[in-house]
Amino acid sequence: MREFDLIQRFFDRPTRQGQVRLGIGDDGAILQVPEAHELVVVTDTLVEGVHFRATDGADNLGYKALAVNLSDLAAMGAVPIWALLNLTLPEANERWLGQFSEGFFSLASQYDVALVGGDTTRGPLCVSVTAGGWVSAGQALTRSGAGVSDRVWITGTIGDAALALALGEQSLASGGSETRWLLDRLHRPTPRIGIGQALYGLASAVIDISDGLLADLGQIVGASGQAGAIIEATSLPLSPAGESYPLDDRMTWALTGGDDYELCMTVPQAKSERMRRLSKEAGVSLTDIGCITDQAGIVLTRAGVPIAGPSRAGYEHLWPVIGEGDS
Amino acid sequence: MREFDLIQRFFDRPTRQGQVRLGIGDDGAILQVPEAHELVVVTDTLVEGVHFRATDGADNLGYKALAVNLSDLAAMGAVPIWALLNLTLPEANERWLGQFSEGFFSLASQYDVALVGGDTTRGPLCVSVTAGGWVSAGQALTRSGAGVSDRVWITGTIGDAALALALGEQSLASGGSETRWLLDRLHRPTPRIGIGQALYGLASAVIDISDGLLADLGQIVGASGQAGAIIEATSLPLSPAGESYPLDDRMTWALTGGDDYELCMTVPQAKSERMRRLSKEAGVSLTDIGCITDQAGIVLTRAGVPIAGPSRAGYEHLWPVIGEGDS
Repeated sequence: MREFDLIQRFFDRPTRQGQVRLGIGDDGAILQVPEAHELVVVTDTLVEGVHFRATDGADNLGYKALAVNLSDLAAMGAVPIWALLNLTLPEANERWLGQFSEGFFSLASQYDVALVGGDTTRGPLCVSVTAGGWVSAGQALTRSGAGVSDRVWITGTIGDAALALALGEQSLASGGSETRWLLDRLHRPTPRIGIGQALYGLASAVIDISDGLLADLGQIVGASGQAGAIIEATSLPLSPAGESYPLDDRMTWALTGGDDYELCMTVPQAKSERMRRLSKEAGVSLTDIGCITDQAGIVLTRAGVPIAGPSRAGYEHLWPVIGEGDS
Repeated sequence: MREFDLIQRFFDRPTRQGQVRLGIGDDGAILQVPEAHELVVVTDTLVEGVHFRATDGADNLGYKALAVNLSDLAAMGAVPIWALLNLTLPEANERWLGQFSEGFFSLASQYDVALVGGDTTRGPLCVSVTAGGWVSAGQALTRSGAGVSDRVWITGTIGDAALALALGEQSLASGGSETRWLLDRLHRPTPRIGIGQALYGLASAVIDISDGLLADLGQIVGASGQAGAIIEATSLPLSPAGESYPLDDRMTWALTGGDDYELCMTVPQAKSERMRRLSKEAGVSLTDIGCITDQAGIVLTRAGVPIAGPSRAGYEHLWPVIGEGDS
């Protein structure tokens, strides 16, 4: 199959996105950015054996490769508009490509995101998606605005993806609707696009939870130049799907399990009522789990009393260092 | 090494690019698109063993990964502004990373391109770069505007990268200044940014020569809904570096060798004088090599008489098809 045919067949889809002046098929894509708006760009790579397994399903991979990027756009408060797909494949397996593109476009069409270009190459399976969107000038959300005593809020429930991973594919696939729900939490996360766009003027800082709550809240604390935060363990929103597991495990999954792609945000105390209203209007649970403090570190409490947290903060992207001091 | 430290150390560089509102370090980057301009985005992936060899040098790889993208922006007539880097690495080799980032930034700083984000992951070596730039609204160049009797022009010389590849690394590395020049043509192509930006109102269609002249001119012919083109073999601009090789080989390299990253454009006959002026002003050779015709196919001539061309049109991205009819 020629690269041209492969792209035509699996990836060149009509779009309703009016801001695409030129999509797939030229040296580049051309987009119209609306007046008084800024461009937000995000990108993420998924590598086989690191971020997903061959058994995870090509449809799930196509979906997730876009979802993790839309989640980043959500955390910036941007409206997603377009995406580029860099797909490195060992071979052109038609069934695999059909499933991958089905998963990708099932999410893309939901948010009217146009696939405007990309590159298809041969090599070990690896997927990079770059996504772009617009935000009203000056209204993008960042990690760096959290103030002392701001409340810490999160969307949805956390620890689900880690639970699904811990249980293992086999036991989940054979299970009922609850386990299927857990599998979807791992493979088909919901980018919190609507909530992200509603946070301007409400949240002082936002991040999406990809590496685990402690690690990602730590990013907000650090980027905002703050000392630390308190998280009240009994406030953490855990899903009923994990109810039969020991509470200690559930806490560890919730605090250190990545891959949930919920939003974590800090909000001045005076705006708590507005957050509760937003939750009702959007139909997405928003939970107050703690606050930013001027005490160093992220402290876990139970009914206000500090308790020991999990030994690891979350998924750390660690690299074996080769040639330290070589250069 | 933590991913954060790796990025800080090798990739988080200050930029003079004023349109970057937020660069590396958040969920996404924020960019200000100037009024009355459109956004152009391009992306390309380089895979070890397919697009480059481990022995090609990390500095060359860093340079080329950006260069091939800037070349695409040039072919669209856009001003390059920002880039994203998705780097998949088997290990964090400090010397390699230092060389790679040196190569990348040597080109980036030349065109004031800001690295505004990316993703660093573990896996088989693979580099995707996405680049963005602006073009005055409605003034982007595409492949699709060529008309019958438009002249076909190309920048610089072609076939150099294919010659370098044919000669092999060893013989080149040990050679003199001419062979070093050839190696640079292969590993450090010059994106024709200035020429690209000068072509609005001149060229009817533009493409960069990445897959070989015949293949890429074929793209213009096809995208423009035309039948074919004539290329005059004696007009092809060949570099002196290949002079000691048989003319047949040099023709084949020029017509089918990819990786030159020169521009190929079609220009209405009445504007030939303006093209010659542009060549002088820009200090870049521009050569008229033929014209678009209403006869099917791309015909090679010598002194106007059709001759046999090379058997292959250029680098075709061919895929073994797995599971044909499966889905």
